[in-house]
Amino acid sequence: MKKVLIIGCGLLGSSLVRSISKKKLAKKIFIYEKSKSNIAKIKRLKLPGIIVKSLKDGVINSNLVIFCTPMSEYKKIILKINRFLSPKVLITDIGSSKIESSKIIKKSLKKNITWIRSHPIAGSEVSGPEHGSVNMFENKWCVLIKNKKTNPKGLKFLVSFWKKIGSKTVIMNSEQHDRIFSITSHLPHLIAYNLVKSAQDFEKTLKSDLIKYSAGGLRDFSRIAASNEIMWRDIFFDNKVNVVKAINLFTKNLNAFKKDINSKNNKSILKKLIQTKKVRSKIIKLKQDVNKPDFGRS
Amino acid sequence: MKKVLIIGCGLLGSSLVRSISKKKLAKKIFIYEKSKSNIAKIKRLKLPGIIVKSLKDGVINSNLVIFCTPMSEYKKIILKINRFLSPKVLITDIGSSKIESSKIIKKSLKKNITWIRSHPIAGSEVSGPEHGSVNMFENKWCVLIKNKKTNPKGLKFLVSFWKKIGSKTVIMNSEQHDRIFSITSHLPHLIAYNLVKSAQDFEKTLKSDLIKYSAGGLRDFSRIAASNEIMWRDIFFDNKVNVVKAINLFTKNLNAFKKDINSKNNKSILKKLIQTKKVRSKIIKLKQDVNKPDFGRS
Repeated sequence: MKKVLIIGCGLLGSSLVRSISKKKLAKKIFIYEKSKSNIAKIKRLKLPGIIVKSLKDGVINSNLVIFCTPMSEYKKIILKINRFLSPKVLITDIGSSKIESSKIIKKSLKKNITWIRSHPIAGSEVSGPEHGSVNMFENKWCVLIKNKKTNPKGLKFLVSFWKKIGSKTVIMNSEQHDRIFSITSHLPHLIAYNLVKSAQDFEKTLKSDLIKYSAGGLRDFSRIAASNEIMWRDIFFDNKVNVVKAINLFTKNLNAFKKDINSKNNKSILKKLIQTKKVRSKIIKLKQDVNKPDFGRS
Repeated sequence: MKKVLIIGCGLLGSSLVRSISKKKLAKKIFIYEKSKSNIAKIKRLKLPGIIVKSLKDGVINSNLVIFCTPMSEYKKIILKINRFLSPKVLITDIGSSKIESSKIIKKSLKKNITWIRSHPIAGSEVSGPEHGSVNMFENKWCVLIKNKKTNPKGLKFLVSFWKKIGSKTVIMNSEQHDRIFSITSHLPHLIAYNLVKSAQDFEKTLKSDLIKYSAGGLRDFSRIAASNEIMWRDIFFDNKVNVVKAINLFTKNLNAFKKDINSKNNKSILKKLIQTKKVRSKIIKLKQDVNKPDFGRS
């Protein structure tokens, strides 16, 4: 690969810049970033990329373009770059949901341009280039979306790209992707936001400062509930159908738990509590989390 | 203090043994533990306590007795030790909910015996004496329960005891305690169990192995959902009234989120997502969690 353009240089965009540079995957890395404060940070951090002032400069000089902005920005940017895109360029992104945003991309993007979607399962509750890291994608899954019309050559290139970045790749279609991540990622985020919101409401009613007693469990949820609001609004809206289905399943199960508690149904509740325990050891065995009690915090 | 008896030497009981010994808070530490496997572990770990074979031996020789068993064990143990208790002994416990269990204690315990309830906000998803640590209670909150009839001398002693252990103490009544912890601890645990249960159900429907993609958020919940099932069943049942109220508030808020998503109500959802973010920085400022992105895991 000769030249790559990263559009949006926040947590993940800046991590890609670092990783592409360290692994020498491109001769030149261009960065397009609209936030002045992020540009100042990129300069201060001396990130190994060339900041371009216009999207045009970046696009006409690149073989690979990676969208690392919130998904709600895609359309606006596509409409700006369409006339500078040549069929030789390959586009991808790191967006966390795929069905709806693919429709927007298809509708806005110039014909005969290849955009193959990626979703690296990486991130954090903090945002901004100062929090990025060269190891962000190392040993993490990266989902690549293959639909009927996906260009095989482009897909092959992207699989190889993400592998060189350090990720494990897996291919799914948009529907599979959005269903799976509605449960493993989108619902957990929504639930964390909702739990913290409920604690805030409760604090107001109680007129008592209860956050200081959050070490009993609430603090864990507060981490996820501190995630970037624009990114998560986009995901919830974009994957609406699956997220709503996931909420409904969650609510059904919560009502069953409530019934167990109200009727002190020992057998029923214990069965569930024992069953859920198994997932933790599975996650650790799959190396999806650290093998230390309490995340190794204490 | 001359002699202390720890009844139940699991994660927290064994941590107390270690801490009392290290800080030289008692001349002798007796341990009563009914599980043979735990007794073998205690011996192998060379915990600094004397294992007593009968509750009688422990009780008649101790000035302070600390119940560190699941709350559902209290009644049985009280009925066994009642006739060996003298009014000079002080009893406490580490149970996570207080209203209902206090009623059971009052009903079962011999008259004129002082039992003042404690709740150290400490623990982990792992159980057993091998996971205990001398620093378990260091800089953590410990709630002491004061009701109308609480013996002031006993309370003063316990405040001083937990401070020597390394905890920060706060005094509440049972009602305040159970209300606050229904939101900061009991609901988060229930929600984590429920989310993992929903993921398991979903996995069955989808006939696809989705746990391996849990790094997007689910893995955090799986830690809490791996907590001891007996302890948590006891808490949910014991604090039933407040837990059900908390579930209802949570469900109301979740329905509002669902409505925002279904109608793509940008303003309403962003307001909530921005508001919840504030709790994380508050928790870190209050030193209730590590000041590192992603709990310092990555």
